[in-house]
Amino acid sequence: MKEDLLSKRDALMYSYKVGQLSKALWKVVEKDWQNWIKPFGLNINEHHILWIAHYLDGATISDISKYGVMHVSTAFNFSKKLEERGYLTFSKKDDDKRNTYVYITKEGEKLLTETLENYSPKNDSILKGSLPLKSLYGKFPEFPEILSIIREIYGREFTQLFEASFEQANHSLEQAEQALQSKHEKEHFLESF
Amino acid sequence: MKEDLLSKRDALMYSYKVGQLSKALWKVVEKDWQNWIKPFGLNINEHHILWIAHYLDGATISDISKYGVMHVSTAFNFSKKLEERGYLTFSKKDDDKRNTYVYITKEGEKLLTETLENYSPKNDSILKGSLPLKSLYGKFPEFPEILSIIREIYGREFTQLFEASFEQANHSLEQAEQALQSKHEKEHFLESF
Repeated sequence: MKEDLLSKRDALMYSYKVGQLSKALWKVVEKDWQNWIKPFGLNINEHHILWIAHYLDGATISDISKYGVMHVSTAFNFSKKLEERGYLTFSKKDDDKRNTYVYITKEGEKLLTETLENYSPKNDSILKGSLPLKSLYGKFPEFPEILSIIREIYGREFTQLFEASFEQANHSLEQAEQALQSKHEKEHFLESF
Repeated sequence: MKEDLLSKRDALMYSYKVGQLSKALWKVVEKDWQNWIKPFGLNINEHHILWIAHYLDGATISDISKYGVMHVSTAFNFSKKLEERGYLTFSKKDDDKRNTYVYITKEGEKLLTETLENYSPKNDSILKGSLPLKSLYGKFPEFPEILSIIREIYGREFTQLFEASFEQANHSLEQAEQALQSKHEKEHFLESF
């Protein structure tokens, strides 16, 4: 089938486009993320590690590296730093004495919750950039093509954990929200834009 | 309208999802890009600068920083390094004596063409990860939502140049392909997968 043939030019053009889009997207995510968590003395990797340790409830360095999409050495070094600051502990599991697991401490949970409470939609460029789509579609876009590409590249297990982590995040945020509600009225943020 | 109200949780959940997706996507693009151009003694920023200088045909450091989504200091330092290696020149324009423009030299063009010729679809994870979508849709996905978000964030001028650069890339690759065709039969790459 002639139309199935893929020329090198088509391949490179497509790849160039995805490369440019993903760079532009990630760079703005990175900048907003950095600004968000800077007041807590955390960098992106540290915040990501806290988050993974929280939702996996005991993660190996290899898990952190895989699900955090960072080098093993990056995962290890920043986990150690978080341990020194009392936000993580390293220990063995009863049913797995070979691997070391990283657990989030109460202090770590507290810090993580504080960062979530401090999140401000006003300072989130991706969110603001997505509002026209939201008002057009009635909901945020879901990017099924991107998820499919990532599933092909990283494997089904990766995207499953990915999606489970969205659920978990939603649940954690709900709890944090309920805790806040006792303090003050639930806030709605559309007026901030 | 109650359904228009955007809770902080919805905002954070959406932002978290886009953050995770864009990180996973960019990290794989970055890795493949590095491996692709390593044989030419270039890093990603240098390759990107060569490309921008090529398609803008005279770019200021501010253009490079903007369209390459990199810090001004990164744009300047790597442009200087490329100048030292003879791939770029710095000069004024007749109609604009205030700004310095970066031009790609013949050596720079030659190097850029060599990198394009050396591109191998086999080593392109994004491409391979997109083939199921291509066979499902009959074409590669076009990511209109992502483009819309980037247009909102970076401005219309950015995405216009972005899209113009795809056209330009296509044209440059077509020329390179025609040059190659005189040497050997046009290659089709589907069999490589």
